[in-house]
Amino acid sequence: MKTYKIAVIPGDGIGPEVINEGIKVLNKISELDTNFKFDFTYFPWGCEFYTKFGKMMDDDGIDQLKEFDAIYLGAVGFPGVPDHISLWELLLIIRKSFDQYVNLRPVKLLRGAHSNLADVKIDDIDMLFIRENTEGEYSGAGDWLFKGQDNEVVLQNSVFSRKGTERIIRYAFEVAKKEGKTLTSISKANALNYSMVFWDEVFEEVSMDYPDVKTASYLVDAAAMLMITDPKRFEVVVTSNLFGDILTDVGAAIAGGIGLAAGANINPERKYPSMFEPVHGSAPDIAGKGLSNPLAAIWSASQMLDFFGYEEYGKVIVSGIEELLIKKEVLTPDMGGSAITSEVGDKMVEVVTS
Amino acid sequence: MKTYKIAVIPGDGIGPEVINEGIKVLNKISELDTNFKFDFTYFPWGCEFYTKFGKMMDDDGIDQLKEFDAIYLGAVGFPGVPDHISLWELLLIIRKSFDQYVNLRPVKLLRGAHSNLADVKIDDIDMLFIRENTEGEYSGAGDWLFKGQDNEVVLQNSVFSRKGTERIIRYAFEVAKKEGKTLTSISKANALNYSMVFWDEVFEEVSMDYPDVKTASYLVDAAAMLMITDPKRFEVVVTSNLFGDILTDVGAAIAGGIGLAAGANINPERKYPSMFEPVHGSAPDIAGKGLSNPLAAIWSASQMLDFFGYEEYGKVIVSGIEELLIKKEVLTPDMGGSAITSEVGDKMVEVVTS
Ligand SMILES: CC(C)[C@H](C(=O)O)[C@@H](O)C(=O)O
Ligand SMILES: CC(C)[C@H](C(=O)O)[C@@H](O)C(=O)O
Repeated sequence: MKTYKIAVIPGDGIGPEVINEGIKVLNKISELDTNFKFDFTYFPWGCEFYTKFGKMMDDDGIDQLKEFDAIYLGAVGFPGVPDHISLWELLLIIRKSFDQYVNLRPVKLLRGAHSNLADVKIDDIDMLFIRENTEGEYSGAGDWLFKGQDNEVVLQNSVFSRKGTERIIRYAFEVAKKEGKTLTSISKANALNYSMVFWDEVFEEVSMDYPDVKTASYLVDAAAMLMITDPKRFEVVVTSNLFGDILTDVGAAIAGGIGLAAGANINPERKYPSMFEPVHGSAPDIAGKGLSNPLAAIWSASQMLDFFGYEEYGKVIVSGIEELLIKKEVLTPDMGGSAITSEVGDKMVEVVTS
Repeated sequence: MKTYKIAVIPGDGIGPEVINEGIKVLNKISELDTNFKFDFTYFPWGCEFYTKFGKMMDDDGIDQLKEFDAIYLGAVGFPGVPDHISLWELLLIIRKSFDQYVNLRPVKLLRGAHSNLADVKIDDIDMLFIRENTEGEYSGAGDWLFKGQDNEVVLQNSVFSRKGTERIIRYAFEVAKKEGKTLTSISKANALNYSMVFWDEVFEEVSMDYPDVKTASYLVDAAAMLMITDPKRFEVVVTSNLFGDILTDVGAAIAGGIGLAAGANINPERKYPSMFEPVHGSAPDIAGKGLSNPLAAIWSASQMLDFFGYEEYGKVIVSGIEELLIKKEVLTPDMGGSAITSEVGDKMVEVVTS
């Protein structure tokens, strides 16, 4: 029997609540299959830890996490700790240190979910976003000159490496090829005259190795518009770190809301642990009240199962979410229901076993 | 009688067609008022010019334009000329050379227009985007190292100056104050750890001078989502060059489509000409067929009238557009009608005189 060692970082705000429910579901799934089980180890890192110890995680945090098969993370961020500290020193450093260069985000309108778009049919929104996750606009490189003076100037540098750009595009072509889908690249070469010209060149080059994959290419502004006016154009999408960040939130908005947005941060070579986390933030204003919606965290857990090779269980979870959405009996207020967080998790446990 | 000298750059694709209609309307307005008239001078610059002369405009193009009171531009871009050349050497160089640091874009659902959002009421979408228009992510600074080698790396540098950041934010506060509206700043300090931390600091600082203006602040990803899920949160919005580019296209998508998106590039000090242009592109596929929708170009013309101080005529034009939208008799196919481009312009001339 295989044991998967999972590092759990519940984090801040509603993070712990939603992660709890995800773990309930994962445990139940592992009971259904005698071939594997999960071993969860909790790490109390995050903003509360920061206020006590002046750092977001242990000094050797990355080393500690290295031993695990995967990381399951809730949410990070709390008033009082500047976001660029809380995120860079926990979420972003994990993505980068473990070379989780693929950020996988389904933008799919589930059956029973409500889209904010008028005149949209359920099958019109079924995309898979593949976002570069380690470099680009989020390189962290920059400079702050002449602070406080008239000529003060601040630089933020995007860094697109050959290796980093090629591997994410190649990964996306592999997915599109396997699934027989169109691959769309999103960039902005007309204004970003170095980075995005390079991106487009690499996309063009790599496409030569995949003559059977149909491709399309849009500017980021046009893409943001078309996701709203004509979402069915998009199937598999590859884009940069920042553009992926923005567009997957557009995706969340059109595909049932942020309460249904799941994400996986993948190191495809499996040299390091991959990380699974809902896209939503820590929502400190509703923490501790049973109001938070655990479905995105649960969907992320299903991505973990996919990643371990148990796609059939991943599907069971997603179908279970659809069942809850269709029945509309056990949902949190943001989804139009009146259940509390743990009731949604309990119901999910019930439906995945039935 | 005041004569306004307007430089007209029809540009590529559908540019000339839509500009024609805008000029019809401007001429008609000036007939209604004996205090001013327009003197239009045409410049044949753009991609066709480029294929003949190897450049997008005359070498002394910027000097030639300097004499004018305003520039009225159609659209730029054509297959065969790389976008980063056609845009940088015409549109972007004008914005920068003439210090048109304010890009003003109304995101307003007009009466009669169709929103792509479900459950939205006409008054829910009424924003004014104020986009920084000369620097930031569009600084054009960057580097391309080790071309063709394994260690190839491409840098794109955002440059946020104190002057550039402060003046756009201050401009936005002035507008919000004058209109008694909430000012929302959109940034991304959690990931862009230099530029957007700076942006937020300057916003905070400048806000001290406007204690009466209510403010709000969102991350760009959250803002993109909220524009779709809860657009009425936004009134006056200030943001960076790239974020403004992306979010105003989200704006176009929710407020009637790109066929209704107008834009003004303003030099508030009036030291240099300002430029008025529809947000849409050159759409070469439909050029010359009478299919293009001139309403965005006409709305941009109304922004020119506003800028010259004739807000009452600006309003007449926008009401005229609403009249066409409500009656649905004379609209181009993208708006659900069957009129050709010039019929829409003719109808606008009729309604602004009635
Ligand atoms: C929290 C933030 C740094 C992060 C990002 O921008 O990547 C988040 O928005 C996301 O999309 O995972
Ligand atoms: C054409 C392009 C360079 C331009 C921009 O990105 O600014 C356009 O999209 C716009 O919004 O005016």
